[in-house]
Amino acid sequence: MKYGHFDRSRREYVIRNPATPLPWINYLGTQEFFGMISNSGGGYCFMIDARKRRITRYRYNNVPMDSGGRYLYVRDERTRKFWAPGWMPVKADLDFYECRHGLGYTVITGEKDGIRVATRYFVPFNESCEIWETDVTNTGRGTRTFTLFSFVEFCLWEALNDATNLQRTLNLGEVEIDGSTIYHVTEYRERRSHFAYFAASEKIDGYDTDSEAFLGRYNGFHEPRAVAEGRSGNSVACGWNPCGSHSIRMTLKPGETKKLNFLLGYAENPEDEKFSAPGVLNKKRVRATIGKYLKRRNSEQAFRALAREWDDLTGRFQAETPYENLNMMVNTWNQYQCVTTYNMARSTSYYETGIGRGIGYRDACQDLYGAVHIMPPERSRQRILDLAAIQWRNGATYHQYQPLDKKGNATIGVGFNDDPLWLILGTATYIKETGDWSILDEQAQFDNNPDETATLYEHLIISVRHIMRNRGPHGLPLIGRADWNDCLNLIMTGIKPGDTFQGDATHASLNDEIGSVPESLMIAGQFVWAASEFMRMAEHRKDAKNARMAARAAQAMRDAIVRHAWDGEWFVRAFDRFGKKIGSRHNAEGQIFAESHGWIGMAEVGKENGMLARALDAVKERLFSRHGIVLQQPAYTAYNFYWGEMTSYPPGVKENAGIFCQPTGWLTISECNVGRGDRAMEYYRSICPAEREEISDVHRCEPYVYAQMIAGPDSARFGEAKNSWLTGTAASSFLAVSQYILGIKPGYDGLLIDPCIPKEWDGFKVRRRFRNAVYRIEVTNPSHVSKGVRSVAVDGRKIEGRTLPDFRDGKTHKVEVVMG
Amino acid sequence: MKYGHFDRSRREYVIRNPATPLPWINYLGTQEFFGMISNSGGGYCFMIDARKRRITRYRYNNVPMDSGGRYLYVRDERTRKFWAPGWMPVKADLDFYECRHGLGYTVITGEKDGIRVATRYFVPFNESCEIWETDVTNTGRGTRTFTLFSFVEFCLWEALNDATNLQRTLNLGEVEIDGSTIYHVTEYRERRSHFAYFAASEKIDGYDTDSEAFLGRYNGFHEPRAVAEGRSGNSVACGWNPCGSHSIRMTLKPGETKKLNFLLGYAENPEDEKFSAPGVLNKKRVRATIGKYLKRRNSEQAFRALAREWDDLTGRFQAETPYENLNMMVNTWNQYQCVTTYNMARSTSYYETGIGRGIGYRDACQDLYGAVHIMPPERSRQRILDLAAIQWRNGATYHQYQPLDKKGNATIGVGFNDDPLWLILGTATYIKETGDWSILDEQAQFDNNPDETATLYEHLIISVRHIMRNRGPHGLPLIGRADWNDCLNLIMTGIKPGDTFQGDATHASLNDEIGSVPESLMIAGQFVWAASEFMRMAEHRKDAKNARMAARAAQAMRDAIVRHAWDGEWFVRAFDRFGKKIGSRHNAEGQIFAESHGWIGMAEVGKENGMLARALDAVKERLFSRHGIVLQQPAYTAYNFYWGEMTSYPPGVKENAGIFCQPTGWLTISECNVGRGDRAMEYYRSICPAEREEISDVHRCEPYVYAQMIAGPDSARFGEAKNSWLTGTAASSFLAVSQYILGIKPGYDGLLIDPCIPKEWDGFKVRRRFRNAVYRIEVTNPSHVSKGVRSVAVDGRKIEGRTLPDFRDGKTHKVEVVMG
Repeated sequence: MKYGHFDRSRREYVIRNPATPLPWINYLGTQEFFGMISNSGGGYCFMIDARKRRITRYRYNNVPMDSGGRYLYVRDERTRKFWAPGWMPVKADLDFYECRHGLGYTVITGEKDGIRVATRYFVPFNESCEIWETDVTNTGRGTRTFTLFSFVEFCLWEALNDATNLQRTLNLGEVEIDGSTIYHVTEYRERRSHFAYFAASEKIDGYDTDSEAFLGRYNGFHEPRAVAEGRSGNSVACGWNPCGSHSIRMTLKPGETKKLNFLLGYAENPEDEKFSAPGVLNKKRVRATIGKYLKRRNSEQAFRALAREWDDLTGRFQAETPYENLNMMVNTWNQYQCVTTYNMARSTSYYETGIGRGIGYRDACQDLYGAVHIMPPERSRQRILDLAAIQWRNGATYHQYQPLDKKGNATIGVGFNDDPLWLILGTATYIKETGDWSILDEQAQFDNNPDETATLYEHLIISVRHIMRNRGPHGLPLIGRADWNDCLNLIMTGIKPGDTFQGDATHASLNDEIGSVPESLMIAGQFVWAASEFMRMAEHRKDAKNARMAARAAQAMRDAIVRHAWDGEWFVRAFDRFGKKIGSRHNAEGQIFAESHGWIGMAEVGKENGMLARALDAVKERLFSRHGIVLQQPAYTAYNFYWGEMTSYPPGVKENAGIFCQPTGWLTISECNVGRGDRAMEYYRSICPAEREEISDVHRCEPYVYAQMIAGPDSARFGEAKNSWLTGTAASSFLAVSQYILGIKPGYDGLLIDPCIPKEWDGFKVRRRFRNAVYRIEVTNPSHVSKGVRSVAVDGRKIEGRTLPDFRDGKTHKVEVVMG
Repeated sequence: MKYGHFDRSRREYVIRNPATPLPWINYLGTQEFFGMISNSGGGYCFMIDARKRRITRYRYNNVPMDSGGRYLYVRDERTRKFWAPGWMPVKADLDFYECRHGLGYTVITGEKDGIRVATRYFVPFNESCEIWETDVTNTGRGTRTFTLFSFVEFCLWEALNDATNLQRTLNLGEVEIDGSTIYHVTEYRERRSHFAYFAASEKIDGYDTDSEAFLGRYNGFHEPRAVAEGRSGNSVACGWNPCGSHSIRMTLKPGETKKLNFLLGYAENPEDEKFSAPGVLNKKRVRATIGKYLKRRNSEQAFRALAREWDDLTGRFQAETPYENLNMMVNTWNQYQCVTTYNMARSTSYYETGIGRGIGYRDACQDLYGAVHIMPPERSRQRILDLAAIQWRNGATYHQYQPLDKKGNATIGVGFNDDPLWLILGTATYIKETGDWSILDEQAQFDNNPDETATLYEHLIISVRHIMRNRGPHGLPLIGRADWNDCLNLIMTGIKPGDTFQGDATHASLNDEIGSVPESLMIAGQFVWAASEFMRMAEHRKDAKNARMAARAAQAMRDAIVRHAWDGEWFVRAFDRFGKKIGSRHNAEGQIFAESHGWIGMAEVGKENGMLARALDAVKERLFSRHGIVLQQPAYTAYNFYWGEMTSYPPGVKENAGIFCQPTGWLTISECNVGRGDRAMEYYRSICPAEREEISDVHRCEPYVYAQMIAGPDSARFGEAKNSWLTGTAASSFLAVSQYILGIKPGYDGLLIDPCIPKEWDGFKVRRRFRNAVYRIEVTNPSHVSKGVRSVAVDGRKIEGRTLPDFRDGKTHKVEVVMG
């Protein structure tokens, strides 16, 4: 069953049934002020940090589901009945409902009994506020009088405190009301110079700033007292739960439309301009912003600028292939999701409360694959240098850091042994996209210590050496606390009931007897790739010594993989602390894994001797299900202390034989590496959100973005997705489809053309902006091959090889590619 | 307006209007399994630790208020309408509603359209389960068929994780259904050997274990799908939110009553008996408990045993005075609250989420004043030794510790300079009650280090010396990070917007230039008292050297107070980092404070020269309001960085001129110390919960227990209480009324009789169990004095002095006291 449809021309997902299986989310904001909004108006907004600067309140995992948000209520003054245009929270039957999620905006329209309310929510570029453009129309035949109520709940303080430290927070709430603007000034009198506001463009008939006064005692959001009675309480919050609510009574003739703007924002005052009178918020500066965006003319202009910006951003990669869903995903939604994962890290979604964690090391690096061509280069550059600065002298890196202070998270600590390699891969991605080699000469700290720095290039050398120095009995990389599979915890030592597997006090170190044995084939594959990238960088710097060091290291790792990890039909996943294989036909459960094959495949190890193709066949046969590639099979039915959290999940869920979507991207790439375009496409489609739209009642998550996980065949909920939006899948899918299937691959020297497509395709087109030039690439496939480029012509002239010239001339160049 | 009344004979508070201004709470459980239950069935239960072993889910500060709990629903099979006997969550109009909160149990009765459902909730002594005894009666004239649905939501894992780490927790849920019992076995397959269950005594017609299946998508607790449709989903949870719900269809003839039991429990299996088959919970052991308590005969027996226990506990102090509310509070509710504060520390109430904090140092010590006569001596003894073990060698103590591991909380750290003195006061309280001097010879660690221990007596010496060594320019105790007033932060150094004032990185140390100046008069008074107590202990041990040391120290402190802290009409509160007075007539705001006078008064400093009585008059005149004694006046209107969090609160709230109820107890004692029984009683009555019952719409909190705070006159919510139940007020009020007003005072050598009562009283009676003897004390006041004992007779014979013999003979002794 479908709950909506794609509006391809407007690049929107249109929801017509508000009772989606889960709230279907969109994001507002592009720089510092962000919001999350569901298809019925649920969600919240924050400034920079969802934990430390949350502006409005959202209660996660609540009953009813998706409670709290940007609510409007309409009360008919004749019948005294009320409803909400977003359906929630009142859930009155609507005559018409529609939610349009677009790039950086959402439009929610509801109509009932001849009144239509349509609101467009967005955050203007370079501003820290969200605009609600609300159009109210009398679609009936008689003149109508009704009252519109707005409602948000403020919580501008630390979000964990908001949820847990009630004896303090319930005492603090303070507000000021000034005309149609409600100022939330809790804690402003004292340490802070920031505040929030909620303004309306109309003269208001009443307001509420105290939630209980608005809602009424023991009432839910679906039955606010003020709305039921048609009368705001004009309450002034004093502690408890401050809110912002306006009431605006209006009378509309048939066909008449009233256009209102609401403005929900965050602002800061300079320390010396905090007050206009003792204890009174100085509103001078913010009034300019409020005044500006309450005018519809200005807000519409801001919206057009935002739309242009998104067109420009996503316009850097536009594909036209025979496969419509691929075009739509890669041109719009996949890139949009990549920018979102870049902006949010893993902090803020319907599943991530914004409290749990900072920015992940590998997450931030892998996000670059999907976003580096879109984000301003200086932002990617700074992020890479921030990541380098939380590396230790010995090469280990912190696993996470906090966005506000950029310090490594000491509670989680170091020891995830794939992390240092991601720094190499992230740097390579950046250089290939931008051609900016100078980043390698930038100084970056070790362990955030300003007294100890080295160039980024030295950081990368240290990363390579760290892995080589920390190898196990088979010459393969020690896994440390875990690799990409955070739940493959092979060096746990003291985990007890209730302990978190991610805790830092329960694992052996690499130098311990336990820690110096378990090896990861995922890291082994990743190392081959990363060392090869590093080698290219060393060559570019004419650093022959380190180029040679890396080349040898890569070869040694290839040899070790082929020698020790081949299990007969596929590669093993890891060796445990006893040196026993994990992911082997000799295991009773967990015989074969996806991740090791993804990375060995991406690194093209075993390609020449045929091992890789055979192993990938085994993956297809044993791990591919109708809902995607399962992480491993058979699922673990019992907990194994020595193998950690992976075995703790119920079968079919998460790391215990769930379908993690990200490895599907890796295996798509691997299939391209062995030239199998049809299977690559089959993989791509298996998790492509738009392909799953028809089974929304099974998939449950949004059909326009990837989810982290889909329940595997061992679960009673096989096919159900979870944790949508914030997943490395966005980047790995974009990498797979753009660079491997379509084969438009940024290289150190220019764009490399190397597609691997379904044989039946006649060809495809891609428009790619790359290093200040635009390439209009047309690929034809007269021989119906999957792989192989017969000729490349640029601006009408054949070129040698498959690498397009690095023009950087601000011009558009025509590229004709013939496969065969 | 009242929402209920006291049933004095049954010792219950009876609520007849369910829409209380705030949920009115009761506690279930006495040892390890605890529950919190509101008057409409809201709340949750946990095992030992509300953070680490929460069993059912409760979403704090939710909309609607008090959402989630122990719900029952009744669905009429003819009309298809449904309602809830506890009013919430359905809020259907009931024909009859009643909630009776008793000691360790709550009975909620609802009746509608001829069906009455009454449920008694309690936790049997020595068991880890709560019993719901549900009686369903057809009170109408025809035979009726209806379905009863039960509902709880499980969340047996770490509560902070439950609220923040959804990407994990939403994947884990697992259950087993066996007959009428639902087993919640999430994470049991792996690290845990514990689980939860929800059982019904009847054969059930259906069940649900998945919340969404029970509630329906986007539905609130007020509209569960299963109930609306009259049909359980028989859902088997697989991730998401596991719940427990039974449906039981029944047909009752007029007047017929059906008695059901539900059982909600926690259980552990031995590691080697976890499974009865691979992955299947071994239910053998727990079935015995379930079988037992599902039988009404057994549950009623358990209830009678529980009631006997509470009679016995509170029977240790029973007073009969001319003042009915005093009798009721002190005999029942105040003692009950004291036990609860002892059990919960400050972790679990409607305002304390169970996540925020461990056991506070001073909290735990002051709770002893109210609970030491009730709790088994070995529990008090252990707690004192646990507290000693988190003292440092230098005398400082951690400010909090976690109940599970008993380790000092390093995040908060040390430096609250009243803390070490509480250890002396707590120990003194224990010895006086029990006569058990041997505790002083027990070894206790320093800083939880097993290699470094000393006797408790040595810990106390160190405490005295720590304060004497850390005095400021006036010879008064340095305040350190704060004293009892956690928000009087005089040594803050780097607090920034968003920082917590309690953070450990933002204050100077005692050795810094800043830290070595600010002094606290609260600690000064407390020191005089504590040093005097220590002197008595040293004397008992014939340790003349330390007795002399303490005597001199106490005298030095008395002198310093009188010399430096007298401000002309009262004592100052503190000196800040610049040596400037806080709480002086020279200040513009915060001229006079309650806490310093409470402790100087309790220590009787300045009594001889009349300063104390004058200062207490000033307190009365300037701080006493119709809702109690304000913390200071005038309130601070602006934030002062150098004085900290106190000035950050809105005026009239919390530490900024709120009415903290605990100082009222101290000042009641102080008034007794200067012999003013009428004023002592006036203070006692001002915050006595039962006295405030009539103004429940102002007070809002429960009329049967103290709240931490009442908003002061500077607040728009003057008179509104907050943070009820878990407050040192319980102990300080019990101390004031039992030992100072009624004057039955445990001393080192026996019970001292020294009342200070209103002059109009003719006398009063107290039954006191003390060191294995019972004293039936009858006090007469023929001359209508407030203070002064003319004669004491024990068992018919006059004794010298006012101290009763320490019989310890298991017998009852008659004591006749004549005042005058």
